[in-house]
Amino acid sequence: MVIELKKEVSQAQAAELGVQARCIVFEENGRSILVSASSVKELPEVLKPHTEAFFVTSSDIQLASKEYRKEKREIDLGFTKIGGKNNNTVMITGPCSVESLEQITQAAELCVERGIGILRAGCYKPRTSPYSFQGLGLEGLKLLALMREKYGLKVITEVRDASHVDDVIEYTDIIQIGAKAMYDQGILRRCGQVKKPVLLKRGFGTTLQEFVQAAEFILSGGNPNVVLCERGIRTFETKTRFTLDLCGVAYLKEYTNLPVVLDPSHAMGYAYGVPDLTRACMAMGIDGLLIETHPNPKVALSDASQQLDFNQFRALHESLGVIGKAIGYKLV
Amino acid sequence: MVIELKKEVSQAQAAELGVQARCIVFEENGRSILVSASSVKELPEVLKPHTEAFFVTSSDIQLASKEYRKEKREIDLGFTKIGGKNNNTVMITGPCSVESLEQITQAAELCVERGIGILRAGCYKPRTSPYSFQGLGLEGLKLLALMREKYGLKVITEVRDASHVDDVIEYTDIIQIGAKAMYDQGILRRCGQVKKPVLLKRGFGTTLQEFVQAAEFILSGGNPNVVLCERGIRTFETKTRFTLDLCGVAYLKEYTNLPVVLDPSHAMGYAYGVPDLTRACMAMGIDGLLIETHPNPKVALSDASQQLDFNQFRALHESLGVIGKAIGYKLV
Amino acid sequence: MVIELKKEVSQAQAAELGVQARCIVFEENGRSILVSASSVKELPEVLKPHTEAFFVTSSDIQLASKEYRKEKREIDLGFTKIGGKNNNTVMITGPCSVESLEQITQAAELCVERGIGILRAGCYKPRTSPYSFQGLGLEGLKLLALMREKYGLKVITEVRDASHVDDVIEYTDIIQIGAKAMYDQGILRRCGQVKKPVLLKRGFGTTLQEFVQAAEFILSGGNPNVVLCERGIRTFETKTRFTLDLCGVAYLKEYTNLPVVLDPSHAMGYAYGVPDLTRACMAMGIDGLLIETHPNPKVALSDASQQLDFNQFRALHESLGVIGKAIGYKLV
Amino acid sequence: MVIELKKEVSQAQAAELGVQARCIVFEENGRSILVSASSVKELPEVLKPHTEAFFVTSSDIQLASKEYRKEKREIDLGFTKIGGKNNNTVMITGPCSVESLEQITQAAELCVERGIGILRAGCYKPRTSPYSFQGLGLEGLKLLALMREKYGLKVITEVRDASHVDDVIEYTDIIQIGAKAMYDQGILRRCGQVKKPVLLKRGFGTTLQEFVQAAEFILSGGNPNVVLCERGIRTFETKTRFTLDLCGVAYLKEYTNLPVVLDPSHAMGYAYGVPDLTRACMAMGIDGLLIETHPNPKVALSDASQQLDFNQFRALHESLGVIGKAIGYKLV
Repeated sequence: MVIELKKEVSQAQAAELGVQARCIVFEENGRSILVSASSVKELPEVLKPHTEAFFVTSSDIQLASKEYRKEKREIDLGFTKIGGKNNNTVMITGPCSVESLEQITQAAELCVERGIGILRAGCYKPRTSPYSFQGLGLEGLKLLALMREKYGLKVITEVRDASHVDDVIEYTDIIQIGAKAMYDQGILRRCGQVKKPVLLKRGFGTTLQEFVQAAEFILSGGNPNVVLCERGIRTFETKTRFTLDLCGVAYLKEYTNLPVVLDPSHAMGYAYGVPDLTRACMAMGIDGLLIETHPNPKVALSDASQQLDFNQFRALHESLGVIGKAIGYKLV
Repeated sequence: MVIELKKEVSQAQAAELGVQARCIVFEENGRSILVSASSVKELPEVLKPHTEAFFVTSSDIQLASKEYRKEKREIDLGFTKIGGKNNNTVMITGPCSVESLEQITQAAELCVERGIGILRAGCYKPRTSPYSFQGLGLEGLKLLALMREKYGLKVITEVRDASHVDDVIEYTDIIQIGAKAMYDQGILRRCGQVKKPVLLKRGFGTTLQEFVQAAEFILSGGNPNVVLCERGIRTFETKTRFTLDLCGVAYLKEYTNLPVVLDPSHAMGYAYGVPDLTRACMAMGIDGLLIETHPNPKVALSDASQQLDFNQFRALHESLGVIGKAIGYKLV
Repeated sequence: MVIELKKEVSQAQAAELGVQARCIVFEENGRSILVSASSVKELPEVLKPHTEAFFVTSSDIQLASKEYRKEKREIDLGFTKIGGKNNNTVMITGPCSVESLEQITQAAELCVERGIGILRAGCYKPRTSPYSFQGLGLEGLKLLALMREKYGLKVITEVRDASHVDDVIEYTDIIQIGAKAMYDQGILRRCGQVKKPVLLKRGFGTTLQEFVQAAEFILSGGNPNVVLCERGIRTFETKTRFTLDLCGVAYLKEYTNLPVVLDPSHAMGYAYGVPDLTRACMAMGIDGLLIETHPNPKVALSDASQQLDFNQFRALHESLGVIGKAIGYKLV
Repeated sequence: MVIELKKEVSQAQAAELGVQARCIVFEENGRSILVSASSVKELPEVLKPHTEAFFVTSSDIQLASKEYRKEKREIDLGFTKIGGKNNNTVMITGPCSVESLEQITQAAELCVERGIGILRAGCYKPRTSPYSFQGLGLEGLKLLALMREKYGLKVITEVRDASHVDDVIEYTDIIQIGAKAMYDQGILRRCGQVKKPVLLKRGFGTTLQEFVQAAEFILSGGNPNVVLCERGIRTFETKTRFTLDLCGVAYLKEYTNLPVVLDPSHAMGYAYGVPDLTRACMAMGIDGLLIETHPNPKVALSDASQQLDFNQFRALHESLGVIGKAIGYKLV
């Protein structure tokens, strides 16, 4: 159950009420909000005098559910807004990993050329083998910051584990929580303490229920700026790297109030399928796209097979606007 | 290995060569074609004098592969063509099951109203429980035939098991092999003996490799008119009925020469997601769409939750043409 | 709902009552049994005067459920019984395919040597490629019949598709319905018309619910002699051929009244793991085991990698009795 | 490639060689070991003068592979040894979560009563919802330490995220890395810096390859004491919580040199199936078992459905020794 307390209830009083009613407590727009387990279906007595409104939810998808808040959340990205009633599809592109100043500069310049506002690139790579390239780490973060300064771009990079979550929070404009870190409550709670937008990727073995419940950790920490990202789930099919779950995206659009971004590059795992899949995503009416591009994919230090080269990306990008227009969405 | 014999080789001679070289033999355009296991990488001596051309393939996807035939196969549906260089996206719609003359008439009239050439409806339902509605059987086939006669529509229905394969072949214009019958070699071989187009649905537990290999049974029987249909695979996610595998579709487009039709209705299992998913499919550049519609889904005898009502379908259908145009495809 | 009619109700009367109450009707021990959809929770008025007993079931697992019949069904195999309170674990072994008189004779002699009563071997192979060995067909069935005659063994072989179901019924002692034919209602219903034991294999993409519902097609046709067989499901893991679902076996033992046989050979796909897995199955307390053996696995025409050679099998077989004894089961 | 340097090479020199040859470097028994990516198939020139032995591996399963080290690793648990040639199956039991002094005391006394050396219980619960019980945290660790002191038991608890990894390392005898934390390189690397035994659980969406590669992070950090734990993978089947992958266990036994422990409680998710599954695991010949028990499962704060009560456990435990003996294993 989600309970919005009256404006006059102080934070201290709210905290005490939270303890009495076994609720998580956080602030939103100067008002305290309490959340109990969804199994609670009746407003606790102790809260009755202080409650402005309350919402019964059918599962532990609570703050993210349309049962609580019907309208899609709108998140300010600085140069544009994602979610709400904007019907923006925000393009995010860049290489899998920051590899060098030269490489990331080329990627940034592609963004500028195409009028794209957000540059993505990994600094801490969640490789499954300790014997593979692990990312440039802090040095990579600094190169991204340099791109932001030089080209006025927003930057996004992935938190792989808790050891560098504070660095990522400091250096980026959007915090990406990777698919393998998605269950990490330390990271989720830490991201709940800030107000920066968080792009939360679905784990490849994660049900939709668990995925949105992970978002609840951030939302109930007091950060309302969560964006969901579907990037492919693991199935029995191995001809492609993962299976992009667009049925799941339809579910998320129907039942949650969070903006949804899609990452067809990781789902497919092979560049040949990325343009078709990206156009499919665009035609669904979604809030954003995450596409991997590299100035020279063949020599990429990670995910070489799935990154588009710049000409492939230009052709794809060119084709998206018209599809968006056909369904009332604007490619940003 | 696929071996095209010289025109002058007689059928009898070809049959004998097939036995000697352990090949499957069939006729295409007055020429005999032999297929050996893909593990054969060198042309057998005995065939050398009689061979016009031969094609080494990397797996038992042979006749369906681009290694053998680069261009997508074109199949004549009478009122239009599917596949080839036509860039047609052929719409097929109708109810899950034929339920009554009145219901199927309404469905047929929706096709006429929207300029759609193919009516679909099941007569033999592959229900998982013996205690559910099993379809009207032959009576249903006759109602479909009536619709064809009355409205000039092509009709398609599903073969569930071998007991009625001959009836389906006789009464329909396109033979649909259902997801649960997809491994049935009796049915596959029987459909290889005719020339009617066959729409082969992917089993929900079937890999892409096995799926296309099932098509090989039909193709190597001498029926070149095979269309593949992706309709969702079974994964760990249960909020939706199945998971539509568009990554797999990208694979099929890249590596096979068969037209591909998509069925988002069965994949999603819930009407609310079907329009978004259908638009996604349309934007990928595909050869056809199979959408379930019902004059009154609430009272449908099967698949009630996933069928669109006619107004939902009209709105969806309206939106598809523009998306097609954006990528150079024509909605037929 | 399962309804047992009074003994005095004639078959003709039962058939009529079935039509009136929309039930499937069959005979068991001279009594008519009716089954309606499980959604029916109250005994229909029309049946009340004629009903001896009725059983409400929570899903369309009805005749196979413990809600209907608490005790495990006992099935007579001639030389021994499977199921019931016998605590027999019946060993079935033999090659993947009948390949020649010599090979199947060696297999039969292994059975005799080890005191095993049932010989298995495929005659119609459900290969995924048309370019692989497809089995000896009727000739294979005749070789199996010869083994029965010569060595007094029972034989079991698999129905792949409906084209040969009658031959398999005629020539074998136990009819095996293969994993890929498991949804085939034509085959299921045909096997419901006979009384021979049917070993029904779970499809590799089939839920437990669907699996047992397939058994309902046979049971509600009037054949009570159904044995379930778990043989591995398809998951994301590809280092092994399939994933043996022993959790599912625990479920079947808890909720159904059907004997359960396990096939670790197909699940594993590699001989190295078969002994360990077989011992694991044995220790669960199950009704039978299906183990593939071949006089010379290296030259086997199908499933070469997973068949045990005779010495491997002897060592395994030797070890099973003690495990059985530890849990009160007898290896037969 | 794994390279064992000569004894006379100093640590400093080894570190420098590691940089030159792009290898990870660690110490084992006073000798430096270098590991390069498995794609390196020839010994680098620079290392030749300093190399005692080297091992080419076929994948990035290197230190854990039988290609490198044929014998199963032996790990000292203080009161007994796990792995090696001991043929011990080490029983570990206790509740899902530490809930109170009284409850954990009862659990400890069950261990003492049954002669079991290791007590398990969670302090940091990796719940998927923020609105569920999250564990007692540090207080729980202290209760476990108390049990160790009072009853002479070894204790094991799970690291959920990096925020408490140091506490878990300090307070427990065996560090458990949970299924959801399994990809966390921060945690893996931290556990590589100590010598305490680490029980690494397989993620439910994790392939065997990735699973063992996660162990490589610990091993290549210099901690050789890694035990693998299979606890069920996520499949399409939902009647049981997960699917215990015993085929995968057969693979791990065949190809890796790490001891393997099984957790049937989490796999099954329901107490009714746990005894049968545990006996199946025991009969495979494995190094340990992790079974959840609770003095009163009905009131458990987490995983209520899958925990055995003490009498159920006693009966199960009683039955395991004989099965072990049948295959030459000793229940410890």
